[in-house]
Amino acid sequence: MATTSREIRLKSRPDGMPQAENFELATATLRDPGPGEVLVRNLWMSVDPYMRGRMYDRPSYVPPFALGEALQGGAVGRVEASNDPKFQPGDLVDSMNGWREAFVAPGAALNKLPQTSAPPQAFLGVLGMPGMTAYSSFHRIGEPKAGETVFVSGAAGAVGSAVCQIAKIRGCTVVASAGSDQKLEWLKSVGVDAVVNYKKGDLLKQVREAAPKGIDIYFDNVGGEHLEVALEVARPFARFIECGMISIYNATEPTPGPRNMAYIVGKRIKMQGFIVSDFMDMREQFFADMGKWVGEGKIKWEETVENGIENAPKAFLNLFTGANTGKMLVKLG
Amino acid sequence: MATTSREIRLKSRPDGMPQAENFELATATLRDPGPGEVLVRNLWMSVDPYMRGRMYDRPSYVPPFALGEALQGGAVGRVEASNDPKFQPGDLVDSMNGWREAFVAPGAALNKLPQTSAPPQAFLGVLGMPGMTAYSSFHRIGEPKAGETVFVSGAAGAVGSAVCQIAKIRGCTVVASAGSDQKLEWLKSVGVDAVVNYKKGDLLKQVREAAPKGIDIYFDNVGGEHLEVALEVARPFARFIECGMISIYNATEPTPGPRNMAYIVGKRIKMQGFIVSDFMDMREQFFADMGKWVGEGKIKWEETVENGIENAPKAFLNLFTGANTGKMLVKLG
Repeated sequence: MATTSREIRLKSRPDGMPQAENFELATATLRDPGPGEVLVRNLWMSVDPYMRGRMYDRPSYVPPFALGEALQGGAVGRVEASNDPKFQPGDLVDSMNGWREAFVAPGAALNKLPQTSAPPQAFLGVLGMPGMTAYSSFHRIGEPKAGETVFVSGAAGAVGSAVCQIAKIRGCTVVASAGSDQKLEWLKSVGVDAVVNYKKGDLLKQVREAAPKGIDIYFDNVGGEHLEVALEVARPFARFIECGMISIYNATEPTPGPRNMAYIVGKRIKMQGFIVSDFMDMREQFFADMGKWVGEGKIKWEETVENGIENAPKAFLNLFTGANTGKMLVKLG
Repeated sequence: MATTSREIRLKSRPDGMPQAENFELATATLRDPGPGEVLVRNLWMSVDPYMRGRMYDRPSYVPPFALGEALQGGAVGRVEASNDPKFQPGDLVDSMNGWREAFVAPGAALNKLPQTSAPPQAFLGVLGMPGMTAYSSFHRIGEPKAGETVFVSGAAGAVGSAVCQIAKIRGCTVVASAGSDQKLEWLKSVGVDAVVNYKKGDLLKQVREAAPKGIDIYFDNVGGEHLEVALEVARPFARFIECGMISIYNATEPTPGPRNMAYIVGKRIKMQGFIVSDFMDMREQFFADMGKWVGEGKIKWEETVENGIENAPKAFLNLFTGANTGKMLVKLG
């Protein structure tokens, strides 16, 4: 009995903003699982801004996506058949084999998910890579102290909204920036102290009003103007957690950096980039703290869901137009 | 018996590049030292790029220089009269009362210098603030490991040349950038592995050739194009020690930052500014190590000397034209 799986392949490399025609839907026939292999049917897959980087053909910390092959990314699925004694049919697993409905892989490429009251897709969000990204870097680079002021850009996204809530748990004042009043209302409902709609009016002026004493930590998801504003309002010894610069990922021309870089010297700012895998030593602590906070209702999240593998490219493209609130997901099963 | 002292006052605030007419020479009559006070005649004074920042009327980590008053800065002098039992006539002291020939100050504003074989002006250079700046930040922010590659801009200056030699002592490969072949020859003579003349040809191309495997530490004295090039050639987890950005200190318009800021994320770069006073806990270790290295001839330095208080503005202005090799000093006594 041949199992088929529909999947999304990279048809051509985007030049600037990715377009629907860069992707194609195809059907693969899966072989039966061999020794040590497992057949998994995906329930949910993740789309994330970092995937844009892998669409360039250039050296990076992960190899570029290959043309004509299925894309990769985080996914949660259910085991259908297993030749690996560590997995049984019915087990929930996560993997990097997203962008497809089903797949066969060695058991070593899968993580069995714990039994919790959280829905499975939470392991692609607050209990998965975005949550770990927020938790690890906020503590390791941000070194937060109670009473400090934290500014978060892209605050309504999966990582940003986790940062906002972790910062509140740590006793910080939180100023959140996002691009719609609806997103900002939700952020207020989960406890942020002040909000800034970057699409409405002067960003610097708004941030100065929201944080009249300046900021101690900047969690950067977007780069560009937000980074310049953060340098302007930074207090001495501020820490800048450089998680992403989505504002320039699709730039086809080099984008000038902040015009006030000299503040890094004068204000003794620490600006540090990272990749979540740099902080894997914090994984157990992350699961312990976030699992507890999610269980206690102290960490909330929103999801924006597209249905069906055929809508995965649309979900990905929407990341760059600010269409999502919270974690952007594709429901596959 | 009235003591007079010629001094340099700030006559007007520079707009862009400072000019001779921003300064004026005046003569002050010193009062006799009161209880606890000391009369010092300066032998040497320092001019440093950071002084440009104090000429702006803006909030900063140190207050701006006042118009119509003597400027301030590092100086080494000899005690002529003392009402503080901790100081005797003939003692060598350093203070922040430069830009004048003599002064009266409380003993608490002076540091008595140790008896060493080093000449007194070394306490304005490798054994003073520039040396401490280099030593403390290179270790604390740079976290150097033997075998790593270090790129130093402004490498022929007082701080830069100390960094180059400390990096060699720590087993690193050193690539030095300066603006004249004569400076670079001197840097080669003190052990740097490769040199780049930023005034000759494409800076990125030259640095790529000098450091084909990339750089692990960038010691930044200049900002601007050098910073952009350093981001381009940085290896993963590179550390950027942000000591100064002399290329933009005199800018009258905001200067765009590096066009490749996104590398901070992708390469997990740490970029950190500092002021030497942040690392005062390293002062004893600094004197122990640098004193030993200077005594062993492992740290060398060059001086560019102007004679007489009347030439102090000229010495300061020359900092911005790259006229100095090594420590820029004014000999007063």
